[in-house]
Amino acid sequence: MSQIYLDRLARVRAAMTQQGVDTLLLSVGHDLPYLTGYLAMPLERLTMLVVPRDGDATLVIPRLEAPRVVEQPGVFQLLPWNETDDPTRLVSELASGSTAVAVGDQMWARFLVELLPQLPGASYQRAVDVVGPLRMVKDAAEIDALTAAAAAVDRIAAELQSGRIPLVGRTEAEVSADLSARIIAEGHQKVNFAIVAAGENAASPHHHAGQRIINDDEIVLCDFGGTMDGYCSDITRCVYTGDIASDVAEAYEVLLEAQQASVGSATAGTSCEDVDSAARDIIAAAGFGDYFVHRTGHGIGLEEHEDPYIVQGNRRALEPGHAFSIEPGIYVPGKWGMRLEDIVVSTATGPLALNSADHRLANVG
Amino acid sequence: MSQIYLDRLARVRAAMTQQGVDTLLLSVGHDLPYLTGYLAMPLERLTMLVVPRDGDATLVIPRLEAPRVVEQPGVFQLLPWNETDDPTRLVSELASGSTAVAVGDQMWARFLVELLPQLPGASYQRAVDVVGPLRMVKDAAEIDALTAAAAAVDRIAAELQSGRIPLVGRTEAEVSADLSARIIAEGHQKVNFAIVAAGENAASPHHHAGQRIINDDEIVLCDFGGTMDGYCSDITRCVYTGDIASDVAEAYEVLLEAQQASVGSATAGTSCEDVDSAARDIIAAAGFGDYFVHRTGHGIGLEEHEDPYIVQGNRRALEPGHAFSIEPGIYVPGKWGMRLEDIVVSTATGPLALNSADHRLANVG
Repeated sequence: MSQIYLDRLARVRAAMTQQGVDTLLLSVGHDLPYLTGYLAMPLERLTMLVVPRDGDATLVIPRLEAPRVVEQPGVFQLLPWNETDDPTRLVSELASGSTAVAVGDQMWARFLVELLPQLPGASYQRAVDVVGPLRMVKDAAEIDALTAAAAAVDRIAAELQSGRIPLVGRTEAEVSADLSARIIAEGHQKVNFAIVAAGENAASPHHHAGQRIINDDEIVLCDFGGTMDGYCSDITRCVYTGDIASDVAEAYEVLLEAQQASVGSATAGTSCEDVDSAARDIIAAAGFGDYFVHRTGHGIGLEEHEDPYIVQGNRRALEPGHAFSIEPGIYVPGKWGMRLEDIVVSTATGPLALNSADHRLANVG
Repeated sequence: MSQIYLDRLARVRAAMTQQGVDTLLLSVGHDLPYLTGYLAMPLERLTMLVVPRDGDATLVIPRLEAPRVVEQPGVFQLLPWNETDDPTRLVSELASGSTAVAVGDQMWARFLVELLPQLPGASYQRAVDVVGPLRMVKDAAEIDALTAAAAAVDRIAAELQSGRIPLVGRTEAEVSADLSARIIAEGHQKVNFAIVAAGENAASPHHHAGQRIINDDEIVLCDFGGTMDGYCSDITRCVYTGDIASDVAEAYEVLLEAQQASVGSATAGTSCEDVDSAARDIIAAAGFGDYFVHRTGHGIGLEEHEDPYIVQGNRRALEPGHAFSIEPGIYVPGKWGMRLEDIVVSTATGPLALNSADHRLANVG
C-alpha cells in the first residue's frame, strides 16, 4: 500500500518543483488521505502534513489521534503534539524559510491566520493547483471503486423507479431517511446527502428534505449519494406520482436530450465548458435557459465535489481518467423542478457512463 | 426571531469597535448561524457574511442556495452570485479598505488564500476573539436546549447501564450504530459521534468503533452525542461486561473522584485551567498522571467543541452561562481506558451538571 503513496508523493514533489512551491500544507480535506491514507477529523486540534519540496514529510498530529495513524517510512513521519503545545509553531518551524506555500482548500482558516505572522515573507496559493491535477486523473483501482459505488446507487434508483420505495403519503424527510438507510445497506460507509424534493420544492436545487407530504400527481426529485471504500456515488433521478402532466413531460424530454448530449460530448480533449454548453444550448433552445441555474457538473472521487468542474469559463480539456457528474436541471419556481445526473469517466475511447439506471421519468403513481 | 439576531449583531459590532476590527467575515461554521440563523453547507461554493463595523451586513451566497435563506431586514441582506461570478471578488469589494479583518475559524483556507492579494494592507485575526466571548455565555433558551439534549443522552446512558443495550458478542461498530439510532430516536436531528471502544481499544481516546467483538469481562467506553434543535449533547459512560477487575475498579474510583471534584470546582470566577487541575491533580496523585493524555474538557453549544476549553494555560475565568464538558480519562496502553463526562454550566450560584446518568461503573455482564 505504501508504494501508492510513495508514487503520489513523488508526483506531487515534481509538481511543486515545476510550480516553484517550497512547502505544501495539508490538513482536513481529501488531499491528505490521497497522499497518506489518513483522513483527519475536522477538529479544533490541528492535524497538518508538511511536505517540503525536498526532504521528509511530517504529519503534525494531536497526540490523542496519533494511535489511529500508522507511520509510513519514506512517506511521512509523525510529530505528535501535546494538549499544551502550540501546533502552528511546530508547523511554522518545519516550513521555516519558505516563500511559496501551498495550502489545502479545506484547511480551517484559523490555522492559516495563525501561520501568517509566523512565516513572514511567504506567499500563499491553493494546494489544489499542485495536487488537484493528479487527483483528477483516476487510476484503474479508483475507477473500479467509483463504478462499484455507482452500481450501488443504481440499484436504489431502480427500486425508486419501480415504485418499491413508497412515496405518496410520506414526508420528504421520511423518504430521505429511507434512501439514506438503503445507501448504507448497499455497501456505503457514509451517507453524503439524500435530497428529496416534491413538486414546487424541486425548484430549489439544494432543497432540504422536510415535513412536506408527497402527494399524487407530482414530480419527486431524488439526488443521493455516499462514500464507499473512500470513493463517492452521486445520482439524481426524478419520478412522477401519477400520469405525467404534459408540461412536465415536455420539459423532461428536453432535459433527457440535453443530458445525453452532454454525456456524449465528454470525450478526452473536449473542454469542460464545452461539455457544459452541450447541455445548456439544448435547454436554452427549448426556451428553458433561465431555468437552468447551475453548472452542468462537478468532478468526483474521494470527494463528492472536486475538480474538474463542468462550468462555463473552465477551459480545461478532459483527460482520460477524469471523473465527473453530468447533471443539468430545469427549475420553474413555484411549480416544479427536475434534474438528471450520471457519473461519467472520460476515457481514451470515449465517455463511459458509470450509472445505468433508467433515464426516463417513471410514473410510480 | 429577528430580534435575537439584531441583539447579537449589535453586541458583535460593539466588540469590533472595542477591538478595532473593521470587517468580520463568516463562512461555514457556527458563528454564521449564531448571527443569522443560517448554517452554510461546507461547499466549494462560497457563502460568506460580510459584517462591516458600521453599515449593513451582507450575506454573499450561491444563487442556488439563496432560496433556503430568508433575508432579515436590519440583520443582513442577500447578495446571490451566479455560477460564473467570482464570489471572493464580491467579498473583497464589500471589505475594501479594511485593515483589520476577523475571519471565522472554519472558513475554508482557499477563500482566505484568494482574498489575501485582493485586500492588500489588511491584517487578519480569528473571529473567535470577537464572536466567541458572546457565544460562550448561553442565555436561558440556550441552556434549556442544552438541558434537553443532555436529558436525551442520559436516557440512552441509562439503557446502556441497565444492560438493555446488548454488548457481548456484538462488534463495536454494531453498538455504535445502535447508539446512533437511539440518538436520533431520542430527538436529535443529527448524530455527531458514537465512540464505542472495548478493552484495550478504550486506551485510544478517539478510537473509531470497528469490527472488534465485545467480550465478557472487559470495559466498554461509550462517548456519544448529537445535535438537537441546534444544540449539542455529549456524554461518556463506561460499563463492564462482568465482575469488575480490581485494577480497573481502583482506577475508576480515582476517575470518579477527579471528575466530581472538577465539576464541583467549576464555579463562576474560577479559571479554566484551575478546573482542569482539579481533576488532573487527583489523577496524578494516584499515580495515573501519565495516563491522562488530554485536556479536561471543551465548551459546547451550537458546536460540539467550542470555547471555553478546560485546559492548562487557559486563564479565562468562568462566567455564568458558560457551558462545557468535564471529561477526565485514564488510558493504559494495551490494557484498558476509561473516561467519565458530563456537561456542566457555570451559574451565579455554582456549577450545574446537565447530565445525571449514574456515574458509577456498572457491571452489565
